Amino acid sequence: MKVKRLYIEAGGKPIVLLNKDDADDLGVRALGRVRLRANGHERTAIVNTTSKVIEKGVVGVYEEVASRLNLEDGSVVDVRLSEPPRSIFFIREKLKGKKLTYSEIYEIVKDVVEGNLSEVEISAFVTALHTFGLDLDEATNLSIAMVEVGETLDLGDILVVDKHSIGGVPGDKTSLVAVPTVAAAGLTIPKTSSRAITSAAGTADRAEVLMPVSLDLDEIRSVVLKTGGCLVWGGALHLSPADDIFVQIEYPLAIDPLLLPSIMSKKKAVNAKMLVIDIPTGRGTKVKTIGEANALAKDFIELGRRLGIQTGCAVTYGEQPVGYAVGPALEAREALETLMGSNRAVDLVSKAANIAGVLFKMAGVGDAETALRLIRSGKSEKKFREIIAAQGGDPDVKPDDIPIGDKTYEVRAKRRGRVLWIDNGRLVEVARAAGAPKDKGAGILLNKKIGEHVEEGELLYTIYSESSVKLQNAIELVEARDFMGIGRSMDMLIQFIAEPPVYKRRFELER
Amino acid sequence: MKVKRLYIEAGGKPIVLLNKDDADDLGVRALGRVRLRANGHERTAIVNTTSKVIEKGVVGVYEEVASRLNLEDGSVVDVRLSEPPRSIFFIREKLKGKKLTYSEIYEIVKDVVEGNLSEVEISAFVTALHTFGLDLDEATNLSIAMVEVGETLDLGDILVVDKHSIGGVPGDKTSLVAVPTVAAAGLTIPKTSSRAITSAAGTADRAEVLMPVSLDLDEIRSVVLKTGGCLVWGGALHLSPADDIFVQIEYPLAIDPLLLPSIMSKKKAVNAKMLVIDIPTGRGTKVKTIGEANALAKDFIELGRRLGIQTGCAVTYGEQPVGYAVGPALEAREALETLMGSNRAVDLVSKAANIAGVLFKMAGVGDAETALRLIRSGKSEKKFREIIAAQGGDPDVKPDDIPIGDKTYEVRAKRRGRVLWIDNGRLVEVARAAGAPKDKGAGILLNKKIGEHVEEGELLYTIYSESSVKLQNAIELVEARDFMGIGRSMDMLIQFIAEPPVYKRRFELER
Repeated sequence: MKVKRLYIEAGGKPIVLLNKDDADDLGVRALGRVRLRANGHERTAIVNTTSKVIEKGVVGVYEEVASRLNLEDGSVVDVRLSEPPRSIFFIREKLKGKKLTYSEIYEIVKDVVEGNLSEVEISAFVTALHTFGLDLDEATNLSIAMVEVGETLDLGDILVVDKHSIGGVPGDKTSLVAVPTVAAAGLTIPKTSSRAITSAAGTADRAEVLMPVSLDLDEIRSVVLKTGGCLVWGGALHLSPADDIFVQIEYPLAIDPLLLPSIMSKKKAVNAKMLVIDIPTGRGTKVKTIGEANALAKDFIELGRRLGIQTGCAVTYGEQPVGYAVGPALEAREALETLMGSNRAVDLVSKAANIAGVLFKMAGVGDAETALRLIRSGKSEKKFREIIAAQGGDPDVKPDDIPIGDKTYEVRAKRRGRVLWIDNGRLVEVARAAGAPKDKGAGILLNKKIGEHVEEGELLYTIYSESSVKLQNAIELVEARDFMGIGRSMDMLIQFIAEPPVYKRRFELER
Repeated sequence: MKVKRLYIEAGGKPIVLLNKDDADDLGVRALGRVRLRANGHERTAIVNTTSKVIEKGVVGVYEEVASRLNLEDGSVVDVRLSEPPRSIFFIREKLKGKKLTYSEIYEIVKDVVEGNLSEVEISAFVTALHTFGLDLDEATNLSIAMVEVGETLDLGDILVVDKHSIGGVPGDKTSLVAVPTVAAAGLTIPKTSSRAITSAAGTADRAEVLMPVSLDLDEIRSVVLKTGGCLVWGGALHLSPADDIFVQIEYPLAIDPLLLPSIMSKKKAVNAKMLVIDIPTGRGTKVKTIGEANALAKDFIELGRRLGIQTGCAVTYGEQPVGYAVGPALEAREALETLMGSNRAVDLVSKAANIAGVLFKMAGVGDAETALRLIRSGKSEKKFREIIAAQGGDPDVKPDDIPIGDKTYEVRAKRRGRVLWIDNGRLVEVARAAGAPKDKGAGILLNKKIGEHVEEGELLYTIYSESSVKLQNAIELVEARDFMGIGRSMDMLIQFIAEPPVYKRRFELER
């Protein structure tokens, strides 16, 4: 059949548009599957139908299909009815509660990446993994399969270390401080990060304020070989393309059965040999108690062992933002100030030093004290600027060079007391209403954190925005319900909840 | 925004196409949701994006959206970012294993029908129902909610009875004989049926050979009030629109957690007060053992009680086709011959009489013997012809008037022996290869059934097709692996299986 490009994107789904008569002749209905062959490639696509736009003998292709098969207008492509992929049967076995073997898991993962499985089927697989659970054998096999179908970063014989946070804490710019510190100690840390989906900033968003982060694998390799580290966006590297799809399924369902394989496959794909996982813990994070954190840590460590990655876990306090800044530019500024010697964000310094320290101990090059000395001595800052330069940013950037939103709103204490709580979820809503993460200068700068004393009228925090309309939206949210609670410690009522709070909680799956 | 109709159908999914700049401004990505408002209606739609086909300020609408909101080219529609529907949170609760309340279930079902939930979310819901199971409270609430969001058939004070088979047996034309028999006894049976999805014929396909079956609710009402019965296609009546969507999710996954609520909601929607459920049992059917059949029957009866439907179940033998004919026209012919007095399809007569007899006992108008007398006396035939006439068919149709495929192929016994087994799944594959159910004259006419003696060279069955190419395809299948096994009963090897047979089994979910 002759190709007509439609220039439509369906969020990654491979769709073709067929004339209804052709669809009937092929014996396929809308949402059925066809197999396309052209230019030596073969791909499965999902069918939409029309009786107007596309004439008989022509197949309309969405961008996802055009790019996978290198199709142009007028290309000739072979279209036939697709048999359901074998992996569907393995998914059905999982639905019966069966444990899957490596080859079955590999087949599923491969078909996910090649677009041979529908959202219905992938969703059922993810849901079944969630409800039945997956044991460490399956987690190991999933991790390996996910690496197998993706790209890898090969740095030769160099010992590669890495860090990862399972996320959930706003303002967590730890990587911006820890990565140059690890590299400053002579270790090699090719750090890939995600952008925000529902948070106010991902590490890739923060780093992008100071340097380009959309590097390809060759560029990353050259930056890392030169400086020992990098801070790049991992989203387009295809280190774990299956995960990029799984996470789109997990997110709306607020489940993440693939959390461990997902994280570990990406670390395996950069050939990390030593790894520290940050597990923020407390109310409002993914992991509520130390007990849960310990159980999760044990799984990470055992899964790491099976994958040949020596893994340590740092259970950290996650009930309020790290440092005072939330929002890409505000956070980049705070990280830079911290590396330049500011000790205001004392929790940030502590967290970054401890995270780096775990890796130093594993590698036998020191501990958290060593990390602290690297930060305080300016060696981490020097390394940070090397990385910025290698990635194509301005190595001489000063904190004040970083543009911040010029529309601001200050919130002051209505009474004397202490900061009793900060609702991270609400804080993120406010920062996003102000424009973060898309408007890099938008966000919130706290002036007080939990436990600090405040006088009536004293500044609690400032909202920054690049647009007066968005600032107004953020103000309305705060006025409807503030994210910071001030009181005397004898006020036992923290918050009046009219709706079940479980419905309001959202987590970013950071991978 | 201004509407541009795209004339594309996405299998029922409400999709709009936005220019990427507009999508960015709205803060929505491909596969995200927007809320559309026009002509006093409000609907959720899924976003695809483009930077070419649609200019800024224009929204391209797929047919599903155009028809729901009555949109034409140039219509003006309000487009805004959609909040996730509340029902997502209830689905998340189900994913945690929680039991859902009626109002939560209603909200989910409503959002399924209104297109507010994505396939990912519906699939997760169905999968969670499958893995956690649903108790009778939930099944009851689901049945009621599914009726609540659909159309109903109101026949006033008349006592309505109904029958349903959970399916899985080829050639099962029982309804064509049982329905007129029930109506001939003075009962009212507004029978709706499905078309084949993966089988060789659905009851609607069989009936359509003799009369129009795509009637609307008003037409059905008039036919039933006139004759006491009907044989119509239920697919477009919206008696249970939620189920029409659920079944599309369940089918590829080969699970059917909603089987009971689905069937019972459709019976509730026609206001049935008495119901007989046929549960075909045996190897190759959905229900393998009498024990399983009894458990399922108990659930049907209890669910019926809660819905105010007196329910009886008939557990029937399902290891080979009912009668000798498989394929719409061949089956219609066999049913008509049977009603006209032929006793060749003795199992068909027996099954139809027993099914009708269950209803007769409930209604206190007789038993299976009564039904048999109605069939033998020609009263069922007379009623059948009344129904054909009322639905717009030819009431004087003779069996030989029914056109059958003129391309035939006879398969004869290679040796003397007995028919030891018939592989229903393979038989259906062969009938479909020959063109059934789309080509109504295609199918298989058995000459021998299980247990019958055959001489070498004797006719086992004939394949009918409307096309020589399709006939050839069917012959190739049979030659590769026949569906009928002949042997002496001492041959203990029934079939050599190279692949795990579980992967070959497919069931039609008949609802």
